[in-house]
Amino acid sequence: MLAKVYVTLRNGVLDPQGKAIHHAATTIGYQGLTDIRQGKYFEIAFDESVNQEQAYEQLEKLAHDVLSNPVIEDYKIDLTTD
Amino acid sequence: MLAKVYVTLRNGVLDPQGKAIHHAATTIGYQGLTDIRQGKYFEIAFDESVNQEQAYEQLEKLAHDVLSNPVIEDYKIDLTTD
Repeated sequence: MLAKVYVTLRNGVLDPQGKAIHHAATTIGYQGLTDIRQGKYFEIAFDESVNQEQAYEQLEKLAHDVLSNPVIEDYKIDLTTD
Repeated sequence: MLAKVYVTLRNGVLDPQGKAIHHAATTIGYQGLTDIRQGKYFEIAFDESVNQEQAYEQLEKLAHDVLSNPVIEDYKIDLTTD
């Protein structure tokens, strides 16, 4: 079972890394860019010993406690079974 | 127009950061995890001056030349119009 977790900065939280990429890209000629924000992306694989419900429960906890800082970041969990 | 770009390490490329998260998560009690890989995630906004085709063209170039290192990383572009 493969899960994807996306961690992004909350709206309103300054993203200097994204701003730097935006500025650099505009400087070297990319057009029409209004904003770039950078986040984190995790691919998490589970073995057969956990079912989808257990996996989702663990993912919620893992995303909240380990992968993100809930004060300034949001996370999204995408759990696919294949 | 909002685009999402996912940058991941190619298969076979060692991911020490992912391995460290995997090890830490297993140590503090998460079960059934077989692998964690970390990547990057970008949200890129375009203004009205570019159409979808132009945006996609720029995204391909930006993802290949700026956001990723094609020697060790793959990227995926997800362009939604809203």
